[in-house]
Amino acid sequence: MFFCSNCGAEVVEKIPAGDSRLRHICERCDTIHYQNPKIVAGCLPVWEDRLLLCRRAIEPRFGLWTLPAGFMENGESTEQAAARETLEEACAEVVDLALYGVFSIPHINQVYMMFRACLASGNFSPGEETLETRLFSEHEIPWEQLAFPVVRRTLERYYQDLKGDGFPVHVEDILRHPPRRAGGAL
Amino acid sequence: MFFCSNCGAEVVEKIPAGDSRLRHICERCDTIHYQNPKIVAGCLPVWEDRLLLCRRAIEPRFGLWTLPAGFMENGESTEQAAARETLEEACAEVVDLALYGVFSIPHINQVYMMFRACLASGNFSPGEETLETRLFSEHEIPWEQLAFPVVRRTLERYYQDLKGDGFPVHVEDILRHPPRRAGGAL
Repeated sequence: MFFCSNCGAEVVEKIPAGDSRLRHICERCDTIHYQNPKIVAGCLPVWEDRLLLCRRAIEPRFGLWTLPAGFMENGESTEQAAARETLEEACAEVVDLALYGVFSIPHINQVYMMFRACLASGNFSPGEETLETRLFSEHEIPWEQLAFPVVRRTLERYYQDLKGDGFPVHVEDILRHPPRRAGGAL
Repeated sequence: MFFCSNCGAEVVEKIPAGDSRLRHICERCDTIHYQNPKIVAGCLPVWEDRLLLCRRAIEPRFGLWTLPAGFMENGESTEQAAARETLEEACAEVVDLALYGVFSIPHINQVYMMFRACLASGNFSPGEETLETRLFSEHEIPWEQLAFPVVRRTLERYYQDLKGDGFPVHVEDILRHPPRRAGGAL
């Protein structure tokens, strides 16, 4: 951010009075421009015993597999955002959404909110940002070709819970460098 | 938003190619300025059988009671944000945070993420944005002087669940006009 979106003057970086963080401030119109994390909402779409994944037709991670997810828009709820993204990326209608994972990713200022959901029908096809949509059984999941760590984490939790007796809501952080045991090998 | 924060030119409102929503666009540097919902993170701080509320020293809703909560910052997790806000507003340290409510409020582009939490000690006092901090038993809750509908909803769910056998994660929307029964009285 270089210019004030309110008046067009150059902004400076300063800590406002009563605050403790550097903000972009306009000294002409006195606007403080806060920047906050964004929500990425998405689904784990289930059809019988398989999950629907999408192969990305856009950067980053072109060609890799992901769960349908994207930035929540103003004016919608988290569930609406997750269902809309699934419709846009996989042309698939989902029902019975249940919050499943809240994953904070502090180093990229994102919070993923992933919902378990049922495909309303067996119908799906690639949306504009998708090369290919496909249902996967557990043993078919392309673990080495997943687009993002949060997709891997969501799928890992899902298959763990599937063997247990329920689906708790997972609230976890995904950090840039996974902690390693002190002095230990990888 | 009137000016491009990247180059300072005036922005226009247009639907970008491949998009379906009006965005602020800079036709000089081709930047699309997306606007997205913000996360408000907060706590339901418990001490023995009482809850800690804060009376607001700032607008909006100056003088009314709220749960400690505020805008999540870049670089933190949702739990860190909730704990930080509790420290800032009530000078209270919380532990054992457990996600309790995800409340989408589409008409103001906010998602509240409320955590049940335990006060680490009986110590608390008003922060800079707070007039007064106090522990309330259920029958003392100032229902008619709560600052926001989301505070009421969180407290209502909490006292309902407290009489049951657990605390599920509530995922709900808070709409501007609560639906009324067709033809019914208020």
